[in-house]
Amino acid sequence: MGVGEKATPTDIENAYQLGKLIAEKGWVLLTGGRKAGVMDAASKGAKAADGLTIGILPDNNTRGISEAIDLAIVTDMGNARNNINVLSSDVVVACGMGLGTAAEVALALKNGKKVVFLTKNIESQQLFKSLSADNVLIAHNPEQVIQLIQQVLL
Amino acid sequence: MGVGEKATPTDIENAYQLGKLIAEKGWVLLTGGRKAGVMDAASKGAKAADGLTIGILPDNNTRGISEAIDLAIVTDMGNARNNINVLSSDVVVACGMGLGTAAEVALALKNGKKVVFLTKNIESQQLFKSLSADNVLIAHNPEQVIQLIQQVLL
Amino acid sequence: MGVGEKATPTDIENAYQLGKLIAEKGWVLLTGGRKAGVMDAASKGAKAADGLTIGILPDNNTRGISEAIDLAIVTDMGNARNNINVLSSDVVVACGMGLGTAAEVALALKNGKKVVFLTKNIESQQLFKSLSADNVLIAHNPEQVIQLIQQVLL
Amino acid sequence: MGVGEKATPTDIENAYQLGKLIAEKGWVLLTGGRKAGVMDAASKGAKAADGLTIGILPDNNTRGISEAIDLAIVTDMGNARNNINVLSSDVVVACGMGLGTAAEVALALKNGKKVVFLTKNIESQQLFKSLSADNVLIAHNPEQVIQLIQQVLL
Repeated sequence: MGVGEKATPTDIENAYQLGKLIAEKGWVLLTGGRKAGVMDAASKGAKAADGLTIGILPDNNTRGISEAIDLAIVTDMGNARNNINVLSSDVVVACGMGLGTAAEVALALKNGKKVVFLTKNIESQQLFKSLSADNVLIAHNPEQVIQLIQQVLL
Repeated sequence: MGVGEKATPTDIENAYQLGKLIAEKGWVLLTGGRKAGVMDAASKGAKAADGLTIGILPDNNTRGISEAIDLAIVTDMGNARNNINVLSSDVVVACGMGLGTAAEVALALKNGKKVVFLTKNIESQQLFKSLSADNVLIAHNPEQVIQLIQQVLL
Repeated sequence: MGVGEKATPTDIENAYQLGKLIAEKGWVLLTGGRKAGVMDAASKGAKAADGLTIGILPDNNTRGISEAIDLAIVTDMGNARNNINVLSSDVVVACGMGLGTAAEVALALKNGKKVVFLTKNIESQQLFKSLSADNVLIAHNPEQVIQLIQQVLL
Repeated sequence: MGVGEKATPTDIENAYQLGKLIAEKGWVLLTGGRKAGVMDAASKGAKAADGLTIGILPDNNTRGISEAIDLAIVTDMGNARNNINVLSSDVVVACGMGLGTAAEVALALKNGKKVVFLTKNIESQQLFKSLSADNVLIAHNPEQVIQLIQQVLL
């Protein structure tokens, strides 16, 4: 999960690398599916490593979809689809931080999911640690994210 | 799309065969994902032919899932997930007829999707022809369903 | 529940009268909330009798709302909001018949709600009687609808 | 919006007072509707001042509803109903802070709504100010919340 239009170059780079590593592990990548920011970059990374990508779209059509999405789930639910994103994921990664990502992190933790943070936004780490200490995991680069996911999935 | 717990033996047989034929065409099978009736049978048929299966689940977990589902989308939206089922499908097939299926057919037609009917419930064909003549297609066996889907996808 | 843009003059007249009678009983009127067809007419009828009206809107704003709605619930869920409409109603009335109405009727019956039909679309009555005989009630005018609702609420 | 089962005594007191003041202004109170924590206390406060209360319930029935809710909207959408809560509100108040509240704040700000914080959780104020400076308003007691709402509604 991560920022759309407002993603920073670092977010984009991390997302691409993360998508690639996820695919190399043989895992399926699920994102919000739009042709923007972290969703798009992570999906492209996954396809570069021949992975499978699912996009849970907010609209009632596929016009805004990333070209790197294999399977589009068309929800017509706007941001309420964020809950589906996290419920359908074994582990959630927050790559960068924005309002949509914060909503997804909150919903993921509320549903008892582990969330791996890969972001320089310290305030988000502090808030969510204060609300759900055990399920907040901090990574500093994509490789560490993968290691943390692996520990969760064991 | 089709009946869950109340599916008839004919529905089940048709669904299995349909799932198999869909997979043999290289198409992805999307169902409501539960371990019941048409959803379960179609998914098993698709796996028998090495297909890819997606299940859009109504609950907030995967406990009721068919074993033949590869990719679970966990919605926690109950029957409101029916709208996602049809919006995410290129063509909708109604295999058998029940209240959930009728809701899906209505939503699919409202969204301008073609719906192929494979059911002995004549009343459903008559109602939906009266409301959306051009998008209601009638098949008498799974092979005909496949032919009609192919015409739609051209 | 009823047809939007495609409502017939009879649907509109019935809806207005129905809204008025519902308000006179002191009941709250819940509709899909849009400024169109049966939703709009029923809400206007209810306001003419000083009733309270709720509109469950499909969009993420209130731009398309009927002026006769007191309380807007903004869902941003498109047609998936139909499930909320029927779950939030004690009794569902189908005034006229279209694809959206058919979806609402199917979802209402699936949730065990009684549905009163006020429509000349015989096919819809036949289909839903075939799928849920006990919960389908037929009325021929708004006064009969009110009598049937009263019997259900007892 | 606010914490359910984990609400503190201060949250409960603030919520009750807030509900009362909102009703005294003639405003409608909208909450998550459950018989728990801030939702329940705010609704009771509003009813003590003869206000109108709406509850947007997560379940597919009204079993968990606060007795102080006048109008129940039954969504069967779990936490995805949080998006409806904020879209349907003119101003959002975060009374206390938990994971559900954090999700609602994030969604409200993403939709361009003003959010008034009444909570001792400083981390939440810091995070959301970092993500949406202009729409985060801080209050120290229920009276200040009312003043801030009034400024927003002007």
